[in-house]
Amino acid sequence: MAKVLCVLYDDPKDGYPTTYARDDIPVIASYPGGQTAPTPKAIDFTPGALLGSVSGELGLREYLESQGHTLVVTSDKEGENSVLDQELPDADVVISQPFWPAYLTAERIAKAPNLKLAITAGIGSDHVDLDAAIAGKITVAEVTYCNSISVAEHVVMMILGLVRNYLPSHQVVLDGGWDIADCVARSYDLEGMHVGTVAAGRIGTAVLRRLAPFDVKLHYTDRHRLPESIERELNLTFHPDAASMVPYCDVVTVNAPLHPETEGLFNDKLIGTMKRGTYLINTARAKIADRDAIVRALESGRLAGYAGDVWYPQPAPAGHPWRTMPHHGMTPHISGSSLSAQTRYAAGTREILESFFAGTPIRDEYLIVDGGRLAGTGAHSYSTRS
Amino acid sequence: MAKVLCVLYDDPKDGYPTTYARDDIPVIASYPGGQTAPTPKAIDFTPGALLGSVSGELGLREYLESQGHTLVVTSDKEGENSVLDQELPDADVVISQPFWPAYLTAERIAKAPNLKLAITAGIGSDHVDLDAAIAGKITVAEVTYCNSISVAEHVVMMILGLVRNYLPSHQVVLDGGWDIADCVARSYDLEGMHVGTVAAGRIGTAVLRRLAPFDVKLHYTDRHRLPESIERELNLTFHPDAASMVPYCDVVTVNAPLHPETEGLFNDKLIGTMKRGTYLINTARAKIADRDAIVRALESGRLAGYAGDVWYPQPAPAGHPWRTMPHHGMTPHISGSSLSAQTRYAAGTREILESFFAGTPIRDEYLIVDGGRLAGTGAHSYSTRS
Repeated sequence: MAKVLCVLYDDPKDGYPTTYARDDIPVIASYPGGQTAPTPKAIDFTPGALLGSVSGELGLREYLESQGHTLVVTSDKEGENSVLDQELPDADVVISQPFWPAYLTAERIAKAPNLKLAITAGIGSDHVDLDAAIAGKITVAEVTYCNSISVAEHVVMMILGLVRNYLPSHQVVLDGGWDIADCVARSYDLEGMHVGTVAAGRIGTAVLRRLAPFDVKLHYTDRHRLPESIERELNLTFHPDAASMVPYCDVVTVNAPLHPETEGLFNDKLIGTMKRGTYLINTARAKIADRDAIVRALESGRLAGYAGDVWYPQPAPAGHPWRTMPHHGMTPHISGSSLSAQTRYAAGTREILESFFAGTPIRDEYLIVDGGRLAGTGAHSYSTRS
Repeated sequence: MAKVLCVLYDDPKDGYPTTYARDDIPVIASYPGGQTAPTPKAIDFTPGALLGSVSGELGLREYLESQGHTLVVTSDKEGENSVLDQELPDADVVISQPFWPAYLTAERIAKAPNLKLAITAGIGSDHVDLDAAIAGKITVAEVTYCNSISVAEHVVMMILGLVRNYLPSHQVVLDGGWDIADCVARSYDLEGMHVGTVAAGRIGTAVLRRLAPFDVKLHYTDRHRLPESIERELNLTFHPDAASMVPYCDVVTVNAPLHPETEGLFNDKLIGTMKRGTYLINTARAKIADRDAIVRALESGRLAGYAGDVWYPQPAPAGHPWRTMPHHGMTPHISGSSLSAQTRYAAGTREILESFFAGTPIRDEYLIVDGGRLAGTGAHSYSTRS
């Protein structure tokens, strides 16, 4: 019998919801390209419920306890006396979400001799020290594609919000004003602009596809070139790397995993090659940008706006400079945690656990590390120090 | 020699801009379907400058004065002692924007015996009493299509913003918090939802086209059915009227002109037929919705959100209930007044004036009322009491 340790974000301040804005969510059976949405044998939760917070328990308790397993759920994850650290030594499985990551450092992994499986309920396993997981023969799995479309929607929303100056204009309404000129003096149409994505994987390609009818000029860079048919369909211009792409762009969106090649990519030097007034949207990982270079570029006007939902560390401290820099459209890390996404990644987490406990293979596309090496999606998206 | 009276919104609170967020705007030469963007003989302004406020003067002063005409520009438009009312009696031409409309009522028109031409720098001439214009043989013209794409972008932005709960989530950042659950408990993906537009003219069709790759189910109603090729391409479901469409929708967007058939359309009765949790976006005209019915529906949860940029009257008073109702994503009336749009409607206004002064025909697609009858675009979009 296993002990499953699940680190989730806190319930809403006013308590766990008793009702929701909507009565149901659309059923998504498969993703672009044909991969099926998660297919657990059963679910014990209501699609559309808040599953990612402590009381939501990712809908796992009934399932796990009926199989004789133990489930521990906590939001307390920082510091040596955290529940995470106290419960880790005899945990077999650790689950967390990128929005509230349980940072599984080499030190923590060393203190968890029973740990066999680390699941990201979501996408992105950079909160796990993959080298340590490889060395410890720990399987690292994530629910690939579960919230890629969610993030792509967030990106398009934020691009439009920055370019059209939505947030300050909404504030004028709240403030009781009608200062049209103040609103529009920074408001543009997206139409005709050059938009480039750093990486065109599942999210990046979904962003490109959604932007195509806006009559923009689309650019991308990626380690893997897209099929010629997609390049032609979306009228894409390929660039060998970010440095050669960004000078052409009015809008840049980052949709790459965090790995040594992308860490710190958007520093003073790269930003200095961008057109004055470029908009930068990063919903990938905060460390892909140099925190203070972003602030400087917004203050100088090199960047006309910055938006995204990724921060380092997470939760972001109250004094994080991205909260107060000019012309930003940030949210907390939520783009992949819509109620729609939660339904899919809770189901995917259950699917992974069912496979793990049955001793049957976890879907290859969910695997980041397995059998002491990068595997599946991990081999495509991540690299390691070794 | 003519007197041109131009009613524009006030300059920004901190003064007319000396610099802008961006150095240029994309050149848009034509619109979907092939209509060319405005083609004045020349322009005397910098594309991308703030033209819609008083100091911007729609870029008209040099042109008009060089021809010997008089230009009066004011933002003062309300009440009998307003500059508008004082200058109106000997004006030949009145120009205003829907964002800051000079309401040309029958009473005002009666006091303007010289008035021959009323130009909307933008789209939508419902601020002009068309019956009085017809009776007075006043030509009413607008710059058709100049900001239709601007508005369509605003609509898509607001749909995503409401569905994904952007504005409250951004506020969490500003407040120094990391209340993920509070953000996401009302956040959904748009994917898979049913989205319907009331009217599928230039704006509505542009909205449908932009939403298609979001993998939504698209619906529309219009007095004129779209070509079958477009219905098939975008996989549209046609409904004979709004009443038969809205019960199927998760999101409804209003893109119809204000006329007797649409005035007050979204009242308690129609809203009562919508699914609980529907999002309503109205960037068309405020009077298409019953103001207080919207507030009631947001408070009851029948509507999960309301957004748009149109109010009645304009400017909206500080106490307008739409400023403080729950779950709204309103802006002042700005969607069609981006700097990109201003460039086009300033050029279009000049094109109309050039035709008018030369005695050559104004483009048919710009005409709402001409020669004592509804004409051109007006005959398609408007109806009159008579």
